Amino acid sequence: MADLGEWGLIAALAARMPPGRYAELGIGDDSAVVSAPSGSVVAAVDLVLEGRHFLLAWSSGYDIGVKAAARSLADIAAMGAVPTALLVAFAAPGTLPAQWALDLADGLAAEAARAGAGVVGGDTARADTVLLSVTALGDLSGRPPVRRAGARPGDVVAVTGSLGHSAAGHALLTAGVSSFPELVAAHLRPAPPYEAGPEAATLGATAMIDVSDGLAADLGHVAEASGVRIDIDSSVLVPGDTLARAAAEVLSSSSGTERGASPPSLALRWALTGGEDHSLVAAFPPSAALPARWRAIGVVREAIAGGRVTVDGATYEGPGGWEHFSGGSSPSGG
Amino acid sequence: MADLGEWGLIAALAARMPPGRYAELGIGDDSAVVSAPSGSVVAAVDLVLEGRHFLLAWSSGYDIGVKAAARSLADIAAMGAVPTALLVAFAAPGTLPAQWALDLADGLAAEAARAGAGVVGGDTARADTVLLSVTALGDLSGRPPVRRAGARPGDVVAVTGSLGHSAAGHALLTAGVSSFPELVAAHLRPAPPYEAGPEAATLGATAMIDVSDGLAADLGHVAEASGVRIDIDSSVLVPGDTLARAAAEVLSSSSGTERGASPPSLALRWALTGGEDHSLVAAFPPSAALPARWRAIGVVREAIAGGRVTVDGATYEGPGGWEHFSGGSSPSGG
Repeated sequence: MADLGEWGLIAALAARMPPGRYAELGIGDDSAVVSAPSGSVVAAVDLVLEGRHFLLAWSSGYDIGVKAAARSLADIAAMGAVPTALLVAFAAPGTLPAQWALDLADGLAAEAARAGAGVVGGDTARADTVLLSVTALGDLSGRPPVRRAGARPGDVVAVTGSLGHSAAGHALLTAGVSSFPELVAAHLRPAPPYEAGPEAATLGATAMIDVSDGLAADLGHVAEASGVRIDIDSSVLVPGDTLARAAAEVLSSSSGTERGASPPSLALRWALTGGEDHSLVAAFPPSAALPARWRAIGVVREAIAGGRVTVDGATYEGPGGWEHFSGGSSPSGG
Repeated sequence: MADLGEWGLIAALAARMPPGRYAELGIGDDSAVVSAPSGSVVAAVDLVLEGRHFLLAWSSGYDIGVKAAARSLADIAAMGAVPTALLVAFAAPGTLPAQWALDLADGLAAEAARAGAGVVGGDTARADTVLLSVTALGDLSGRPPVRRAGARPGDVVAVTGSLGHSAAGHALLTAGVSSFPELVAAHLRPAPPYEAGPEAATLGATAMIDVSDGLAADLGHVAEASGVRIDIDSSVLVPGDTLARAAAEVLSSSSGTERGASPPSLALRWALTGGEDHSLVAAFPPSAALPARWRAIGVVREAIAGGRVTVDGATYEGPGGWEHFSGGSSPSGG
């Protein structure tokens, strides 16, 4: 990036990232100014670090831009809010090609636009590895936020977006299997259903979260915050997902770490424990009339001793063990 | 930090950082919700990286917390806005003592509180070095933002807060001179005069910026954005600053890189080119009645060829050369 110089790089990056329709003042001053029409602003920040959240060998600059934007924007949607703006802090080695950074800006801009938002500010620095910190802002349109707390016994738990596809894509990349490009894309460029967040709020969702750590773990956060148990119905999770099941068939007969696993159990494991799909999962009153994109996958029960999340009424003893399911504050978001 | 575990660390950090009076929802959900009473939100992000912005050998965790918070909060004040909240992304090696991270949280919380804000959200991760990305939010109280553009010929340029004290502190630390603890503290823990930002807006400031890159460089940004020249009067910059002059005397006779420099010219160089004081410098109409804390240091002139910032009417040929003064978009903030 040294060839462009710091000012030149910033100008080139900024030119590729439109500020969006909520921006009152975009990149180029000490701060940005973003419209907050309902009198409050929803805000979340997420780190995306080379080696920890992505590998340069697997992901293009564009991919990382999409992924970093999606990670933070999904946190806004999960409150029932409309994303309005991103601020992007970006550091990289001076040896990184300038084109990589420009591709990154394109990915950030594309995903922000898909969410209805723009890029209004940022910071750049040199570092030994590539790192991003993306702050997303949003507006609640006058509604209260949909929190993790609020799920009540009897509520229906429903999800919109893929479950386990990012994990399946990661497994395919690890095994070097180049088929199933949709699953690999789901890992490299997650596509959260942003507009479903405000929709869920309008439908009366009592609690909501985005699937970043894995369905069971994230529902564990909801169950803990709400003081309830959530029971997942495995019979509706996987059977209809022909793509994940086909990938599980291939990987279970490959030479990778999934070799010998039962394909149905592998697909179920991805759906229950795979993170980074950034799909939205919410609890709704049983009377809610859910549009087709919301798939009912479980119910909220009274809390019991021994577990906050159950699968088909029992403890799920998947890889990673119970500690993944036991809740505690999530590190992401607000 | 491994001894606390990720959840334990986050809970311990969160407990030390109050959300502040603008927080409608703080740490613990997917996003935070912050009051934006005037219907828009001011936002800025800054990176603070080990090795680039600080050294663990010089700075405590508390120092880094103060510095990282001040860097972003000053960008809010420089728009004439009132800081409301911080979101903090933090990554560190697992070997970093947990107490260091707790001290960091204390520093972030203390500086946020000094600005009238709180800490409402964040993210944590592992990394090989310590890195922070702090996003600051603010509210304009119904006023328009004070931008870099807007300075007009005839305006008075005034500053509040120290100039060059951070640079003097850095020089003292580099030279291993342990006297002048106030100057070392100014480098390690900058103390921006936040409340002077909204005050300047109320006084009719036509342009404002915080001194992060150095007075001349930052006034270069203002001059470029405003299409004017700014002339600094060196006779009011240094003579009254007995502390900086005394440090310059000591360092000019020390064995460091400042050895042999003329003390007055060294103090002037710090004041003109030293960054990271995060003082506020603004242009005001000549009729503005400035409170005592605003020191007039220059005037706005018509643009001329050959320079956007002059000192005593002429080009300042300090170390670093003219390119430092020639403007271009600043990387910091919005």
